[in-house]
Amino acid sequence: MSRAKKQDRIAALAKYLSDRPSQLFPFSHFCDEFAVAKSTLSEDVQAVRESFEYFGLGEVETVSGAAGGVRFIPGLPPQKSRDFLSHLAAKLSEPGRIITGAYIYMSDILFDPAVTQVLGEIIYKRMAPRYQPDYIMTMETKGIPLAVMAARAFGVPLVIARRDSRVTEGSSVSINYMSGSTRRIQAMSLPRRALPQGAGVIIVDDFMKAGGTAKGMVDLANEVGARVLGACVLMSTREPSVKMVKDYTALLLLNQVDESARRTEIEVFGGSGERI
Amino acid sequence: MSRAKKQDRIAALAKYLSDRPSQLFPFSHFCDEFAVAKSTLSEDVQAVRESFEYFGLGEVETVSGAAGGVRFIPGLPPQKSRDFLSHLAAKLSEPGRIITGAYIYMSDILFDPAVTQVLGEIIYKRMAPRYQPDYIMTMETKGIPLAVMAARAFGVPLVIARRDSRVTEGSSVSINYMSGSTRRIQAMSLPRRALPQGAGVIIVDDFMKAGGTAKGMVDLANEVGARVLGACVLMSTREPSVKMVKDYTALLLLNQVDESARRTEIEVFGGSGERI
Repeated sequence: MSRAKKQDRIAALAKYLSDRPSQLFPFSHFCDEFAVAKSTLSEDVQAVRESFEYFGLGEVETVSGAAGGVRFIPGLPPQKSRDFLSHLAAKLSEPGRIITGAYIYMSDILFDPAVTQVLGEIIYKRMAPRYQPDYIMTMETKGIPLAVMAARAFGVPLVIARRDSRVTEGSSVSINYMSGSTRRIQAMSLPRRALPQGAGVIIVDDFMKAGGTAKGMVDLANEVGARVLGACVLMSTREPSVKMVKDYTALLLLNQVDESARRTEIEVFGGSGERI
Repeated sequence: MSRAKKQDRIAALAKYLSDRPSQLFPFSHFCDEFAVAKSTLSEDVQAVRESFEYFGLGEVETVSGAAGGVRFIPGLPPQKSRDFLSHLAAKLSEPGRIITGAYIYMSDILFDPAVTQVLGEIIYKRMAPRYQPDYIMTMETKGIPLAVMAARAFGVPLVIARRDSRVTEGSSVSINYMSGSTRRIQAMSLPRRALPQGAGVIIVDDFMKAGGTAKGMVDLANEVGARVLGACVLMSTREPSVKMVKDYTALLLLNQVDESARRTEIEVFGGSGERI
């Protein structure tokens, strides 16, 4: 097999890097893969960086030193993120999505990987400047696909809190929490081995009303000696304005659902960093 | 801003295509994005195709005609897939993973997006030659991240069967099914609007013993007028050899878990297409 040409390496490098966001690859990894010297690889990395910058596809970051390498930092430019969220807000405001009880049907959007992959990168972009989590944490079930994609963007694993403990996951830790909206006491559990002591965690979920579920996850993480750094939900409600957790942000804000008038008001939230 | 150079376009094209596996992009989409004529774009597509072929990163397929375009077909070469699964089998066989009741702790692996992304592509490669699903279906909770990544590879949305119906998802369809291993009757439900009539579905899950859960999903899909085309699980047990569903395949086969000797035997399964 003949040696790969420069354009072959550039296309492959673009794929390797963007397939594993936030993952630091040692330079030697690609020097070996491409059978080139470090100086040549540096030129290839620079070419991919310029391309991604030109088209607004994210950043290619090089880290120098012995533990150095190259990694892909995901995220659309601010205006593109905002357009994406505006489009999503409009879609979620369709009258046909209103469900008895003033709920909004969101599952089709939450379960579309093409949507959640972009949302995961928007969550990354929002949270990464302040927090470097070791894990993304969510509560089953609806927020899991979004949390998977946030974990992908951060290059970290996911942990999932369950409503009941499972015999297939070994001994577990449980807490009781109060659902802020229904005022019911519920249980939440995590396998004892899921989260190591001292781990930093970001909570990702689909929806927040009073914040009771997020507060439960904070307590559960504390129970095993982990720390919750912050929380990000796809959509939070305007009321109650005081939530049961403090450090949270949302991508969308649900102002109101008027079931009789069949009208929903959703706005893009916190895009410029305010009220985070 | 100056016009993008050929190598800029190639890096961007590699990223756009591999970010959205199976998605057919009209040629005009990229001609507009890159401000080039179709003949130039064809050369760029050819360059990315050659690169991906050279490094074994998947295929770039062009479809001609009015509804034509270009798409990325994901999947490692067979030997790399087999190596990946062998490595996974070894990891899952670690004695420390054995849980009282002869279960195996798999959550850390199932919840690592870097692992599930590759597994999703292996499932795609295994199933796509025979089935073109409209949806990937799974049952909450542990298999969801894997199913998300399979859905990503197929370029289709996910549907998630729940243990109970949720007020936030509107009216639902429920069935009762018998868990093949515990012999208990359990309920499984799906929002009525989750799956359109006539939709073709592939079931993806983490684990199969007797196949009761998969059989439940087949019944649930039938109940709403959808068709299950096939099923793929990460790991199935050797016993019982006759499962409650027929058209299934597994990536790994669990031969035995010997709790007292702390030994687990797992082999790579069906890689060559036999016993699918």
